[in-house]
Amino acid sequence: MSKKYVYLFSEGNGSMRELLGGKGANLAEMTNLGMPVPQGFTITTEACTRYHEDNRTIAPEIEAEIYEYLGKMEEICGKKFGDPENPLLVSVRSGARASMPGMMDTILNLGLNDTVAEGLAKLTQNERFAYDSYRRFIQMFSDVVMELSKKDFEGIIDEMKAKKGVKLDTELDAADMKELVRLFKAYYKSKKGADFPTDPKIQLLEAVKAVFRSWENPRAIVYRRMNDIPSSWGTAVNVQSMVYGNMGNDSGTGVAFTRNPATGEKKLYGEFLMNAQGEDVVAGIRTPQTIDQLHEVMPEVYDQFAKIAHTLEDHYRDMQDMEFTIEKGKLYMLQTRNGKRTAAAALKIAVDLVAEGMLTKREAILKVEPKQLDSLLHPQFDAAELKKATPIAHGLPASPGAACGKVYFSAEEAVEHAKTDKVVLVRLETSPEDIEGMYAAQGVLTVRGGMTSHAAVVARGMGACCVAGCGDINMHEEEKYFTVGDLRINEGDYISIDGSTGAVYAGAIPTVDASITGDFETFMEWADELRTLKVRTNADTPADAAHAYSFGAQGIGLTRTEHMFFNADRIPAMREMIVSSTVEQRKAALAKLLPMQRGDFEGIFEAMQGCPVTIRLLDPPLHEFLPTDPADIQALADDMGMTYDDLKAKIDSLHEFNPMLGHRGCRLAITYPEIAEMQTRAIIEAAINVNKKCGFHVVPEIMVPLVGHVNELKYVKNIITTTADAIIKEAGVELKYLVGTMIEVPRAAVTADEIATEAEFFSFGTNDLTQMGFGFSRDDAGKFLGEYYDKKIFESDPFAKLDQDGIGKLVKMACELGRKTRPDIHLGICGEHGGDPSTVEFCHNIGLDYVSCSPFRVPIARLAAAQAEVKNPRNK
Amino acid sequence: MSKKYVYLFSEGNGSMRELLGGKGANLAEMTNLGMPVPQGFTITTEACTRYHEDNRTIAPEIEAEIYEYLGKMEEICGKKFGDPENPLLVSVRSGARASMPGMMDTILNLGLNDTVAEGLAKLTQNERFAYDSYRRFIQMFSDVVMELSKKDFEGIIDEMKAKKGVKLDTELDAADMKELVRLFKAYYKSKKGADFPTDPKIQLLEAVKAVFRSWENPRAIVYRRMNDIPSSWGTAVNVQSMVYGNMGNDSGTGVAFTRNPATGEKKLYGEFLMNAQGEDVVAGIRTPQTIDQLHEVMPEVYDQFAKIAHTLEDHYRDMQDMEFTIEKGKLYMLQTRNGKRTAAAALKIAVDLVAEGMLTKREAILKVEPKQLDSLLHPQFDAAELKKATPIAHGLPASPGAACGKVYFSAEEAVEHAKTDKVVLVRLETSPEDIEGMYAAQGVLTVRGGMTSHAAVVARGMGACCVAGCGDINMHEEEKYFTVGDLRINEGDYISIDGSTGAVYAGAIPTVDASITGDFETFMEWADELRTLKVRTNADTPADAAHAYSFGAQGIGLTRTEHMFFNADRIPAMREMIVSSTVEQRKAALAKLLPMQRGDFEGIFEAMQGCPVTIRLLDPPLHEFLPTDPADIQALADDMGMTYDDLKAKIDSLHEFNPMLGHRGCRLAITYPEIAEMQTRAIIEAAINVNKKCGFHVVPEIMVPLVGHVNELKYVKNIITTTADAIIKEAGVELKYLVGTMIEVPRAAVTADEIATEAEFFSFGTNDLTQMGFGFSRDDAGKFLGEYYDKKIFESDPFAKLDQDGIGKLVKMACELGRKTRPDIHLGICGEHGGDPSTVEFCHNIGLDYVSCSPFRVPIARLAAAQAEVKNPRNK
Repeated sequence: MSKKYVYLFSEGNGSMRELLGGKGANLAEMTNLGMPVPQGFTITTEACTRYHEDNRTIAPEIEAEIYEYLGKMEEICGKKFGDPENPLLVSVRSGARASMPGMMDTILNLGLNDTVAEGLAKLTQNERFAYDSYRRFIQMFSDVVMELSKKDFEGIIDEMKAKKGVKLDTELDAADMKELVRLFKAYYKSKKGADFPTDPKIQLLEAVKAVFRSWENPRAIVYRRMNDIPSSWGTAVNVQSMVYGNMGNDSGTGVAFTRNPATGEKKLYGEFLMNAQGEDVVAGIRTPQTIDQLHEVMPEVYDQFAKIAHTLEDHYRDMQDMEFTIEKGKLYMLQTRNGKRTAAAALKIAVDLVAEGMLTKREAILKVEPKQLDSLLHPQFDAAELKKATPIAHGLPASPGAACGKVYFSAEEAVEHAKTDKVVLVRLETSPEDIEGMYAAQGVLTVRGGMTSHAAVVARGMGACCVAGCGDINMHEEEKYFTVGDLRINEGDYISIDGSTGAVYAGAIPTVDASITGDFETFMEWADELRTLKVRTNADTPADAAHAYSFGAQGIGLTRTEHMFFNADRIPAMREMIVSSTVEQRKAALAKLLPMQRGDFEGIFEAMQGCPVTIRLLDPPLHEFLPTDPADIQALADDMGMTYDDLKAKIDSLHEFNPMLGHRGCRLAITYPEIAEMQTRAIIEAAINVNKKCGFHVVPEIMVPLVGHVNELKYVKNIITTTADAIIKEAGVELKYLVGTMIEVPRAAVTADEIATEAEFFSFGTNDLTQMGFGFSRDDAGKFLGEYYDKKIFESDPFAKLDQDGIGKLVKMACELGRKTRPDIHLGICGEHGGDPSTVEFCHNIGLDYVSCSPFRVPIARLAAAQAEVKNPRNK
Repeated sequence: MSKKYVYLFSEGNGSMRELLGGKGANLAEMTNLGMPVPQGFTITTEACTRYHEDNRTIAPEIEAEIYEYLGKMEEICGKKFGDPENPLLVSVRSGARASMPGMMDTILNLGLNDTVAEGLAKLTQNERFAYDSYRRFIQMFSDVVMELSKKDFEGIIDEMKAKKGVKLDTELDAADMKELVRLFKAYYKSKKGADFPTDPKIQLLEAVKAVFRSWENPRAIVYRRMNDIPSSWGTAVNVQSMVYGNMGNDSGTGVAFTRNPATGEKKLYGEFLMNAQGEDVVAGIRTPQTIDQLHEVMPEVYDQFAKIAHTLEDHYRDMQDMEFTIEKGKLYMLQTRNGKRTAAAALKIAVDLVAEGMLTKREAILKVEPKQLDSLLHPQFDAAELKKATPIAHGLPASPGAACGKVYFSAEEAVEHAKTDKVVLVRLETSPEDIEGMYAAQGVLTVRGGMTSHAAVVARGMGACCVAGCGDINMHEEEKYFTVGDLRINEGDYISIDGSTGAVYAGAIPTVDASITGDFETFMEWADELRTLKVRTNADTPADAAHAYSFGAQGIGLTRTEHMFFNADRIPAMREMIVSSTVEQRKAALAKLLPMQRGDFEGIFEAMQGCPVTIRLLDPPLHEFLPTDPADIQALADDMGMTYDDLKAKIDSLHEFNPMLGHRGCRLAITYPEIAEMQTRAIIEAAINVNKKCGFHVVPEIMVPLVGHVNELKYVKNIITTTADAIIKEAGVELKYLVGTMIEVPRAAVTADEIATEAEFFSFGTNDLTQMGFGFSRDDAGKFLGEYYDKKIFESDPFAKLDQDGIGKLVKMACELGRKTRPDIHLGICGEHGGDPSTVEFCHNIGLDYVSCSPFRVPIARLAAAQAEVKNPRNK
């Protein structure tokens, strides 16, 4: 049997979303429920895929099938295509599996030509309506199918209005509309060299093709990438009999939600316009009425609609977003779908639906998109104050949240002034030396750099607000001001920045803090009851750790020890350590760092209340800690009692061709064992002290980075255990600790069975694993990834969403190999992917013990983990 | 049953090499053959491993077993340890599985103390002999076991000789020897604070431990790394009854080979010394006699020895290297082993042994070490002339062969003068811009850089002679001379360099070329008959291709297209292409490059006589082609009609943080499809032209580099096939071509099943795969790999010998996945590993179709492939 590419609405149902798209499946479902739906048919998503495979042609058998179903539709509707006595007019709309609002194209009133228009005028006794519909159709068809700009047609209308001295379209009469049709057709011919197509069947086929093509328009491609929708899904096309809301004062059209999409309140919410088409509502020329008012205008229709709305919500067990039209007093349902809603509304609705007995907790947990929670977790501008403000510039929304503070242009000044004031750090771009300033500031604004620039990555890690790449700004760093157009902002002036939108405001807009309370709290408790995957956090400071703990983190999956060394009071000893030429000098410098590190770890252990904490040994190449500016080098040389030339030579000797592939990670511990010794001592002594002080049983997990070969781990582990065991013995206490490794080098993943002979845990460093697995560095990939998206080579950013087919395969392989050697090996992920919901689901599915992510993503990961468990229970 | 750690010679046999080491197994085998072997026992390699596992202690049960076997030995020899009446004296020697000459330690005369020495003097009626033996023992034991320098003891001897006014040791008499023993013991006590051990059993145990320890001495570690011997093998220890060649004129000692190790001639070859110990032969104080002369001195002993030699060669079916001692007219065999030999001798012996019916061809093929052939494949200095010369400096032997020519200090000068003269290019270090000069020169000498520096890698690829990192040289590049000490070498002066030894000579030493003739040719024919793995070459020029073809290459596995662009006549167009700001400008520049590329490919196709040729599309990051020096930038800007600032900005915009992980490989073809188009055009047009001209059926294989995702290949393949098919159609010819990819990115290896949907062949780029798989770049790894070897984290250089456990696992996985999708997919390797014998064997075993290596390694790979087939036949 050959494949079926077309379905009448009455042949489908709500479960056929993959084939019929969301809109088509729901139209079929409403038809089955006996609701008043203008009838028609759906051309499947497979026909779309086939169209693109066949080099953008519709196969003859599909064309025949479309015409066959057109015939069936004519029969059902009792109207005929092109029949002036009783014409069938249709809308042609796209409808993908996932809702992509506004991304693809729609054509209304298809089926009109001169004869049909004339017939329609007679039939409706409304010539203006007939020719208004006709000119709208020509306009839409020309735009969507023939790529003639809508604006040109608007221009023709404007000319006519000017000639007649009127302002509104509604002031044009039937004759004007008829003239517009003539002018539009003439314009069409002048541009296309052919008459506007008069055969409705040709119109239909061309419209269907245009919808198929629109699946690949740039807007749609970008939308899909942002929303992880594969291009292979394709879109369905719905051909539906037209109904008209603009047939007089007993007609109208509207949109409504079963609950308030902003707050979640259980009450019909929406608006309608009498004697209007959907377009008019959107155009905003007349002010629509609220849906309540329909009760007064047409009580019976309102009651019927309210009943349908109630039925649909019950049926779909979710808040519905519906479109309807009233034609001469009769209600038609044009669409229903699960409504988009704010995060707050989503939580309230989910909690309410459980209370109402409509959903179980397991079901409710799937009703909130984890990423949505983000907006509830960062400080936000006070909504009332924000309304009064206008942005002065826009950058990239690099790290969400809102911040307001006085402008400072250097990390040092930011740190200094943060002691007394709120501060926003403004930099051309940031470097590791700015870390302390970034910590101190409320937010960071950079002129250069993208979503993966240093500022963006570090700010997201901290959960700090960041607007990056704000090219509107002209920096005058030395004179301590910046300009945007004519506006000048001086050091110490207030600005406000919104890391969720990229907007920059002059002046101070107050912010309000986030907290997990009420419905949010209830909902997250359910998530925690359900999930089997633990959620830890990546935190480098006691403050971050405490924050994450309050957001529900069950431990720390990654403490990077290097950020600690950039603080102004530590970097001198760090630099002294690096430029040491003997082991003794190095040990002396390390001895200065020891108490500071120990203090850091004590703070973190305390903040985590005895939860497990994984601490990674020093990772970055040492040259990152050294100055590059000649003046800074001279200053350091003076501090260290070296000559400029000697220090410069030392710095140069640390230069690397490919720092990412250089002397870092465990390679540092192998060449300078005394660094690993000092860090182990700091960790173990801190654990002993905190256990003693707080009565905890902290089990520190010491993590060796960048291991590629089991012998590397073996060597460093020996340093760690020798040091740790001696300290523990000397202290005369019991202390359990673990030694494990990052799996972030491809070779480690494929030899994980060997590495597991030494490692008590694996933590997947998927940032580096992605970089080395693909063979491109995040810093450099910006130069070509744009083209990769445009050319559909990648559909999503592999640094944001784990590439499950490739990098994920390495992760899965490493888990299997690791467990083969050591069945109880503890497995987690600490790459930035750990907070991405699709990656969390993947980690659940391959059986990791935990994911670890930045503090602000902890609640997101908790929800994603609960959803993963619901979809694929571990203890089946 | 507990493990047996000690074997009498009579308990072992020749097949027990793993357990008893080579020396021990052969002593056992000779014992079994009834040959006169001083008896004793072997402590196994497992005891050595155990010793190191047990933190350098000998377990009590092993100690007991050693003493038990000492008892058995005493019984066999009829002598007793420490018995002055009839003392057992022994040698203690290491003996690993593979021969490691001179790498580990030996102690002779063990068992002596004051009482035994006195007894020995009486017993032998030779007091001088007894005390000479004693003082030698003290000296060796102190050195090997107690780490007291040999030199200090020599100093004491020198003092005594000075005091007595004599020059030679032999001029010291018995009393002197006795005095020396006293002085040695006093010195020992002064240094060690204890008496020299007198208990022979203690002496024995300490000596055994010292031999075990010597397995891990730095010399041994380096030797093992150079010879791919795993440290896990351990060494055995042979305890053998002493026999003495210095007991008078009816005693002597010698070494002999069954055939000439330099030429392979079938004739006993060796030398001996009467009234001497082995040490004396080595010391070179007296001139030894040739083995023939033994026939005159002791005809019966000679006949017996000749017969034994013949028996041993027959028995082992290989040329033997034997040590013997004659004690009072009686012959003792101390050792036999397969003799080391020159490459020429190895070939002659292998061919002769087949002719003599001693070996089959399959067996003979295993008798030549593939790496040995290298010395026969490069130009060499005329041996007679070389003898007269003395090196003025030494660098690293970076690429083998000999070269002599006039010194020039820039690539341009080298190219210019190479037209009329032989030239040696001398540079501080080389960069891609020097390629043309390197090609033109006979050899390259650099002051900086290691074995994996640019100069070294490129030179090895070309098969050109290179001495790198010759720090003895002081460059005065601008003044066009260099100095070594007081010697000044000016531009245009002759020097000669030896890339096999690293030696640099002043003046011209004539060289002679390599050719494959005679036994070499016969032997290689056998290799080709046997092997199932094809051997291709990596060649970028017609000259290299022709060279490789003459060395037996069956095609080209890798033509890099980028080197072609560095030529002085091409780089301007290349640079123009790179700094283009529009597609049109870029196409115009590419149009200039097209005829040059086409010409290159025609030359290569012709040189390869119709064999398959794989051509890789442009790979390196574009900034490599641009100048960095301000003057060069200005010159280029002038050429291009740009301002300095504009060009500098363009160059800066191409800067990358990690060029290895940057915008290169197929990423170039994706962002600049017109480059791939031009290259495809050049390849296809060249193939059509050459097929027409020569009547070949060249099937070009177009290789897309750095693919990590199947979509990358799909995109670039589409450019290639669209371009190629149009050209072929237009030309009206039949032309088959293939499109495939490098597998050099880890993600490509793990998703090879997907990539094989598009790729018709895979070529493993194991250089990059090693870099990305381990996560270190070759340029940067030098900073820590030294420590990795010292700390036994790595035992061999992963860039020289494929890491089979990790990177090899990725290769194997990719083969299996690729074949699953496309059973007939063609598989090869084109990384530098392709010429390494152990890697060739690995490639054979995992079923690759071919290996590809630099022209000079082609014969090596052919032999390695044949050996792999013999060891593991494909059609079992």
